[in-house]
Amino acid sequence: MKVVVDAFGGDNAPLEIVEGAVLAVQKNKDLEVILTGKKEEIEKILNGKEERIEIVDADEVITNNDKPTEAIRHKTNSSLVKAYDILKEREDVVGLVSAGSTGAVLAGAIMKIGRIKGISRPALAPILPTKQESDVIIIDSGANVDCKPVNLLHFALMGSAYYSIIYNKENPRVALLNNGVEEEKGNELVKETYPLLKNAPINFIGNKEGGDFMSGKVDVMVSDGFAANALLKGTEGAVSAVLSILKKSIKSHTLSKIGALFMKQTFNELKARIDIQKKHAGSPLLGCKKLVVKNHGSCKRLNICASIEQTMLLHKNKLVEKIEKSLANLEKAEVNE
Amino acid sequence: MKVVVDAFGGDNAPLEIVEGAVLAVQKNKDLEVILTGKKEEIEKILNGKEERIEIVDADEVITNNDKPTEAIRHKTNSSLVKAYDILKEREDVVGLVSAGSTGAVLAGAIMKIGRIKGISRPALAPILPTKQESDVIIIDSGANVDCKPVNLLHFALMGSAYYSIIYNKENPRVALLNNGVEEEKGNELVKETYPLLKNAPINFIGNKEGGDFMSGKVDVMVSDGFAANALLKGTEGAVSAVLSILKKSIKSHTLSKIGALFMKQTFNELKARIDIQKKHAGSPLLGCKKLVVKNHGSCKRLNICASIEQTMLLHKNKLVEKIEKSLANLEKAEVNE
Repeated sequence: MKVVVDAFGGDNAPLEIVEGAVLAVQKNKDLEVILTGKKEEIEKILNGKEERIEIVDADEVITNNDKPTEAIRHKTNSSLVKAYDILKEREDVVGLVSAGSTGAVLAGAIMKIGRIKGISRPALAPILPTKQESDVIIIDSGANVDCKPVNLLHFALMGSAYYSIIYNKENPRVALLNNGVEEEKGNELVKETYPLLKNAPINFIGNKEGGDFMSGKVDVMVSDGFAANALLKGTEGAVSAVLSILKKSIKSHTLSKIGALFMKQTFNELKARIDIQKKHAGSPLLGCKKLVVKNHGSCKRLNICASIEQTMLLHKNKLVEKIEKSLANLEKAEVNE
Repeated sequence: MKVVVDAFGGDNAPLEIVEGAVLAVQKNKDLEVILTGKKEEIEKILNGKEERIEIVDADEVITNNDKPTEAIRHKTNSSLVKAYDILKEREDVVGLVSAGSTGAVLAGAIMKIGRIKGISRPALAPILPTKQESDVIIIDSGANVDCKPVNLLHFALMGSAYYSIIYNKENPRVALLNNGVEEEKGNELVKETYPLLKNAPINFIGNKEGGDFMSGKVDVMVSDGFAANALLKGTEGAVSAVLSILKKSIKSHTLSKIGALFMKQTFNELKARIDIQKKHAGSPLLGCKKLVVKNHGSCKRLNICASIEQTMLLHKNKLVEKIEKSLANLEKAEVNE
């Protein structure tokens, strides 16, 4: 199975990206990776470890300062555009991984690969830990700030299909982010969305509040990208605030400093559970015709490796086909109504 | 100074409400409290401690199951409606405190007391801790889920006036909640709101993300009630999730259990900083002609006492007049443009 990786996207490119690809081919014997970017630099990092790694030279780089659409159109020799060209043209390449500019990755997906019929915009669905054992995804996490009810319906279908594959869980629990749990609660958007989700072929468990996000009671939280971003960033900020208050207090009391030494195991566990991003894959652009996985700009080799492996998993389990099928079922249901 | 208190609003009424009033008159020699509710029950709790406490009998109670507007209209002998009648009719009563149904408190404020001229709906602005020493408020926290740019402008003015009084801080830092910090970022609502805040007589520091909410870089976070609610509840949920993961891990490791004993001081400090609601006042309904402070339904005596004292502070520092003045300045600026 072949995956193309944009070796020059992200803050830690190319070193961490290339090393992530090396890790992935070492772990997966059926994997081949194509790296796009400055050939010489990539070769230097590979330093002979190029088994099942192909390099496609690309001497331009798209940055966060570039306007996404223009960059995709004009920086034709950039590592990202080259990667998209390969994904588009080569049938045996099943997906693309990039940690580059979100806007450019999104623009490239739409312009070069195209959306699944019926989906107006691809969505991102990052993963967060909960206080139970399970994880939760939120869709859309910020790509679409002004949404219509039908967009949220598509997010729900796509998020459900995605979650069911990555956690091997039939009928994940899909909730609508709201400011109250009652059916009649919410702004105009969610009030109009509620009946659509109720009738959709998903396990819709109703409205949930931001406070339920990390409770373990929800698998897929559906929201417009604006409120989702507030929730997601607020959650991250709150976790960091608690840890920062804790650290400061430990430093200022001798007894606490001693106690902290005994608690190393607990702090490591907490960190491992909370810093889920550390080892995790990025988020696919759900709704594209081929698999595109977007990593956080600051990601490291473990994330890139995880994203490549996620791409393989999503391909094997036919994510794109599953989304197409659930959209078709939806249309049939509407026709029958 | 006289404050009227709805003795039968909230989950812990009447005991905690009455005891909160007793605390407040004990601490403040210039305070008189009027309690509304079932006279006999209140007298039993007071048990002789009725110095500077007057009881006005009211034998009905408005619950969360009542429809707010109907309840205000028809339950004329309820503790809340009686309290509003007193606030409206007696000039010497400067404010009202209730922990009853948010909808009913809001409806009562609008129907009985009225809004400041120019304000279309009152807003709530609860307080949260940050990882610095300062606190942050968010306005509106959920009363108004579908907003127009002018609503957010009013929230900014009212929030700024409120924060400057309760923290005695000139020109608090007002930010607009957004999914990015750049001026051109955001949904339609915030994009249209940005220039209004830029030209308003406040210390507008631009767009901030949910992740900045508890950073200590913002004093007043302005948002529509829907996204604000997601942020607020998400923040609370994340804090609770971290503590829950921490607790579970401590319980499962003997060394951690020992460490936790040494860290008591730190855990107490963390709790005191995070559980700010424990001792804090509720939120005023900003935008009403007279002071109305809404407490959380689950609040205890310390909260009620704090809310009564907050009412006194806001009255002494002329919150209502300050909001009226900043609205007038705004209109003048618009006329001059």
